[in-house]
Amino acid sequence: MIVILKPSIDTQSAEYHYTLNALQGLPGIEVKLNSTQGTHEVVHEIYLIGDTEHISKDNIEALPGVARVIRISTQYQILGREQNNRQEFEFEYNGVVFSQNNLNVFAGLCAVDSIDTVEDMMKSLQSFGQTCTRMGAYKPRTSPYAFQGLGKHCLPYVFEKAGKYGIKVIAMEVTHARHIEEIMDYLQQAGNPTGVMLQIGTRNAQNFELLREVGSQKTFPVLFKRGYGITLTESLHAAEYLAHAGNHNIIFCLRGVKSLFGPPHRNMVDFAHVPVIRRLTKMPVCIDPSHSVGTLDQTPEGLSDIFHATAQGIISGANMVLVDFHPNPPTAVVDSRQAIPTSDLDWFLEDIRIARNAFEQRAALAQKRLNS
Amino acid sequence: MIVILKPSIDTQSAEYHYTLNALQGLPGIEVKLNSTQGTHEVVHEIYLIGDTEHISKDNIEALPGVARVIRISTQYQILGREQNNRQEFEFEYNGVVFSQNNLNVFAGLCAVDSIDTVEDMMKSLQSFGQTCTRMGAYKPRTSPYAFQGLGKHCLPYVFEKAGKYGIKVIAMEVTHARHIEEIMDYLQQAGNPTGVMLQIGTRNAQNFELLREVGSQKTFPVLFKRGYGITLTESLHAAEYLAHAGNHNIIFCLRGVKSLFGPPHRNMVDFAHVPVIRRLTKMPVCIDPSHSVGTLDQTPEGLSDIFHATAQGIISGANMVLVDFHPNPPTAVVDSRQAIPTSDLDWFLEDIRIARNAFEQRAALAQKRLNS
Amino acid sequence: MIVILKPSIDTQSAEYHYTLNALQGLPGIEVKLNSTQGTHEVVHEIYLIGDTEHISKDNIEALPGVARVIRISTQYQILGREQNNRQEFEFEYNGVVFSQNNLNVFAGLCAVDSIDTVEDMMKSLQSFGQTCTRMGAYKPRTSPYAFQGLGKHCLPYVFEKAGKYGIKVIAMEVTHARHIEEIMDYLQQAGNPTGVMLQIGTRNAQNFELLREVGSQKTFPVLFKRGYGITLTESLHAAEYLAHAGNHNIIFCLRGVKSLFGPPHRNMVDFAHVPVIRRLTKMPVCIDPSHSVGTLDQTPEGLSDIFHATAQGIISGANMVLVDFHPNPPTAVVDSRQAIPTSDLDWFLEDIRIARNAFEQRAALAQKRLNS
Amino acid sequence: MIVILKPSIDTQSAEYHYTLNALQGLPGIEVKLNSTQGTHEVVHEIYLIGDTEHISKDNIEALPGVARVIRISTQYQILGREQNNRQEFEFEYNGVVFSQNNLNVFAGLCAVDSIDTVEDMMKSLQSFGQTCTRMGAYKPRTSPYAFQGLGKHCLPYVFEKAGKYGIKVIAMEVTHARHIEEIMDYLQQAGNPTGVMLQIGTRNAQNFELLREVGSQKTFPVLFKRGYGITLTESLHAAEYLAHAGNHNIIFCLRGVKSLFGPPHRNMVDFAHVPVIRRLTKMPVCIDPSHSVGTLDQTPEGLSDIFHATAQGIISGANMVLVDFHPNPPTAVVDSRQAIPTSDLDWFLEDIRIARNAFEQRAALAQKRLNS
Repeated sequence: MIVILKPSIDTQSAEYHYTLNALQGLPGIEVKLNSTQGTHEVVHEIYLIGDTEHISKDNIEALPGVARVIRISTQYQILGREQNNRQEFEFEYNGVVFSQNNLNVFAGLCAVDSIDTVEDMMKSLQSFGQTCTRMGAYKPRTSPYAFQGLGKHCLPYVFEKAGKYGIKVIAMEVTHARHIEEIMDYLQQAGNPTGVMLQIGTRNAQNFELLREVGSQKTFPVLFKRGYGITLTESLHAAEYLAHAGNHNIIFCLRGVKSLFGPPHRNMVDFAHVPVIRRLTKMPVCIDPSHSVGTLDQTPEGLSDIFHATAQGIISGANMVLVDFHPNPPTAVVDSRQAIPTSDLDWFLEDIRIARNAFEQRAALAQKRLNS
Repeated sequence: MIVILKPSIDTQSAEYHYTLNALQGLPGIEVKLNSTQGTHEVVHEIYLIGDTEHISKDNIEALPGVARVIRISTQYQILGREQNNRQEFEFEYNGVVFSQNNLNVFAGLCAVDSIDTVEDMMKSLQSFGQTCTRMGAYKPRTSPYAFQGLGKHCLPYVFEKAGKYGIKVIAMEVTHARHIEEIMDYLQQAGNPTGVMLQIGTRNAQNFELLREVGSQKTFPVLFKRGYGITLTESLHAAEYLAHAGNHNIIFCLRGVKSLFGPPHRNMVDFAHVPVIRRLTKMPVCIDPSHSVGTLDQTPEGLSDIFHATAQGIISGANMVLVDFHPNPPTAVVDSRQAIPTSDLDWFLEDIRIARNAFEQRAALAQKRLNS
Repeated sequence: MIVILKPSIDTQSAEYHYTLNALQGLPGIEVKLNSTQGTHEVVHEIYLIGDTEHISKDNIEALPGVARVIRISTQYQILGREQNNRQEFEFEYNGVVFSQNNLNVFAGLCAVDSIDTVEDMMKSLQSFGQTCTRMGAYKPRTSPYAFQGLGKHCLPYVFEKAGKYGIKVIAMEVTHARHIEEIMDYLQQAGNPTGVMLQIGTRNAQNFELLREVGSQKTFPVLFKRGYGITLTESLHAAEYLAHAGNHNIIFCLRGVKSLFGPPHRNMVDFAHVPVIRRLTKMPVCIDPSHSVGTLDQTPEGLSDIFHATAQGIISGANMVLVDFHPNPPTAVVDSRQAIPTSDLDWFLEDIRIARNAFEQRAALAQKRLNS
Repeated sequence: MIVILKPSIDTQSAEYHYTLNALQGLPGIEVKLNSTQGTHEVVHEIYLIGDTEHISKDNIEALPGVARVIRISTQYQILGREQNNRQEFEFEYNGVVFSQNNLNVFAGLCAVDSIDTVEDMMKSLQSFGQTCTRMGAYKPRTSPYAFQGLGKHCLPYVFEKAGKYGIKVIAMEVTHARHIEEIMDYLQQAGNPTGVMLQIGTRNAQNFELLREVGSQKTFPVLFKRGYGITLTESLHAAEYLAHAGNHNIIFCLRGVKSLFGPPHRNMVDFAHVPVIRRLTKMPVCIDPSHSVGTLDQTPEGLSDIFHATAQGIISGANMVLVDFHPNPPTAVVDSRQAIPTSDLDWFLEDIRIARNAFEQRAALAQKRLNS
């Protein structure tokens, strides 16, 4: 850590001595002074040497003689990736592999509304070779007067149908520790016919209590959705809470952010961060085109903005797609404007294949280029 | 609710019939049609008459023939204020009155760090006639590696000292239901020497499970901090979760928002919303100048930005001030840059009195004006 | 235009009569009244029929009895595209075709710094079959103390070298009407060896005087860069100023927006708006990955964020790429962090081809799907 | 300037030597090296000593071995205020004094619409002792189809009436150099009955050509409106363009910023920046409550949000108020929702006096406190 003092500071002043004493009082930290004469002023720096990870930058900057503090070491201890480190990071859950090197599609229901819809959805998935889906049982809604999801009551048939149609992993949001227990109980009662990936929603991105509770179980992998009103750095710190609690099987999901630049989309699409997450961390990256785009409006060639956003995420290496489908979108109880009709599932999958293939060609070209 | 159909819609089309059928299928809702010939096109509207509160605007807008949906009725059922309704809304807790017509100051520690600091702080408060304070025991922090607060361990001496120095209400953030129980238990063990106002932090503004848990107890009033990355409307909906769960003793706190316009302040100060909350809702309005401004830098006459922001909130009618003080700010473990030294407490209170007095003169002038 | 009156309005009140009179006084507009009884209140609407394009929505909303005003007709008279209208919009300039159906790459210098750099750059372009480039002569800079571009002094050799290496179109920012004259003069003096596309920079997106001046000449096509701090709607209105002044040969350029979600990128990448511009307007869409991303950091497979953002724009149908190259990036005088070395030009072009090919496959699939 | 190299850099590497050579090649700059052994890595710093004002931080950060660059010296050479420097900065124009120590009110018409309105407005101003006003002749509007102001045609009667009613200074927006000439010409033709303050609107905040043109005349003082979509730092750099061109008689105006937190206000009110401008620069600070708030909605005691925002700016030391009035607001052609009726002018002025008086009491208290 480098502490730069105020340009005009007098080394005989009380301010200077106060600051120096405070720094010398830090336990286990060695202090070194360095002064350099510039044209207009002298620059005084103080180096703090030792384990500075736990020292608050804010507190040092609050000392009276300090102008700026620079932290040298990296921030995301568990999830972070050192620059130029190409080490892989992957995990397998219920037979499905998640890594920065492959792609899984989770098409499904934003909110479970009936057993028939669940069955329709899963039958379609199976018929196109899909083994993952999303199914929302617990729905956090902006207003207390809106539909809040069917909750645990739908779990028995969701799990049963998943088993019937060969679904291996269901992404499902949880907003309270008791939801984890309910999921675990109902899965067990049903004979574990499928698996669940616990999803942290954007509104709970900084609900650190929930992050600790979800992170301290190791049964289920976790899908962490970026906070829609906080910086990327803050979202990565929040994901680190999960890892710090013990569970390292984490996928980071981009889902759009709040911005005055969003409209006509529901949020401002943030998929240019796909490569950023891939180079700063070891986590597989998921994209949620439904909640970021939020509309099925189409370009002249007949492709909707959701298809386009999905292709954008995938051509830059996204590893998972979480996307809303519905057998009959206008009747969906939540976010019906953004659900793709199930009849377009095969088209969507084929569109994805084109984009993924393009990504792989690009990666191969880069490889060839770097080796030459 | 008024449903405006697409300008070009053909009333013989499948699209039109599908939409009309869907609307006519809404239970308990009467449907009326109205068409008007404009210069360029015909405008078709459909009125939905009945209890439309529970109908999702999104779902109606998703119908194929719909261009726009307009909701007529108000949104915040419990907390909202009808236009021109001057009805008061006040509550008393442990001898302290909270309303849109008075002002309470909660100066205190952002984070409790030691028994001595707590005692110093409370002694100062008593010496200047203060009976409210803030004391942070549970601190949600951006990184899992930062200090997380002393938690329940500090409660015994915080409550004991509060009793000793005549403190009636302590604002204290909670981030989990068990914190409410801990506070209740320790208060009881100490013989209820003081009272507590439960604070919902900005990161938990949309943690609806916590809102329901805090809202469903009626022992403690609640201080709800606006979400720093969501709109004002979304924050008001979130506050409505508290009221909907049963507790109407709610104070709404402005604490700055995330924005690229914030720097050099820590957040973008949002105190122009003081009058907005006062006219849209019945809630008393609190301002938190410490977390919004975040720096003690001063204007040439020697007043810090925190003093200025406080005066701004108060001259427009703020009813509560939540502000960080510390006997020795550079040693504070959290947010030390923004804590005002306790030695300036009397100055701060006098500065506030000038601003409150100005507000009262302004209100009296308005009254005189409106009556003339 | 539909005017919805306040829910509680009394049709005998002064407020109501004042509002009705004001609307009936609008010249050339017919007024129709409609009232509908809801459960809780009566809804009163007033239809304004006629040429309402020139009526200010703000002014109507300011009338005392008005709750809301809804405009029915479209906004971008010249540049706008009616929903479902697949009509093409293309123009040719100096032998190069611009449309929503093809792709042109403008790789070149953000700022011209020397004749040698210009020659190096153009030689490279020619060797890879490129006939377009960017060359910045007039550089608007945030601080008055920063390098402001070589201005007209570099034009003679820029145009001469362009002719020598077969460059047909140079995108060049102008910030004042006199720059247009200077470009015209120097081109003529050089014997018109090349063509120029006038670029409106993001800082001048709402400099309506400049837009009128650039729009009222028809010699050069115009590249309009979205305003980085205004909404998409506002940027489209601004582009309409160009068209309204007479010049319809306009390309709309996405270049990232200001946001707290931008970092670690220089701006928040906005290429999810490529399909939005393509469906709302007839304009070809350009992407500027250099200024939006602003860093050459790479994902593990060795592709930089700029390459990834470019691929994202292209796979969703972008028609032009404006991108910073430099023979020796660290010596570039402006924005050196984001310039790609010329030695990577062939790689960049090949990476683009993969993405464009993927877009074409996606469009063909959509076509097949819609025809089936 | 301090250049911090990458933590892991090898001093034998090509990267290191390339960087060092580049820095040693900077003309007129001395280079000093410093290395310090930390626990985990060595920190290498390079000091650049000399006149580093003109060196681009971006370019240095682009060098291959560089991690971060820190600039020590201040940025706003002419307008900036050194910390703790209480030096005053004031100017007089046409008998009116502008400084950080007083307050001038500019109530008037957002857009001139007729000679009668102008006369009504000025008569009211005179009757309440006002000698300054605002009068919009040239109106930049978002859409090319909206009313663009009466332009030079209204200047003769605006200046004549100003003379008749004792108006000394009229704030008037200009968007092109020819407007300055027109104003100068018409003023002269009328016999200079009044003075004009040239206003740079928010949309032209980074129109550097206009800033240079306005800044290079010294006849009129300048009112610079903050850019609504750029940071405060960028706006201050832009104001420095005016000063750099020669004119130091500049007032900095806060007028709200674009943000998703603005509604129900038109923009996000930014008056917490009043103290920031006052401590960072020598410029008097103006507030524009009309464009920032944009609505006359009232709190229960009958004070509108515009009155409240004004009071907030003034109690923290604002030096000028630019505010929209109209004899008959609903008929105003531009921004009619935010114009205060002229019949409330005396009330507004009295409300302002209360707030200014409170500011002066606060300043006196601070003075007493600092002297004790």
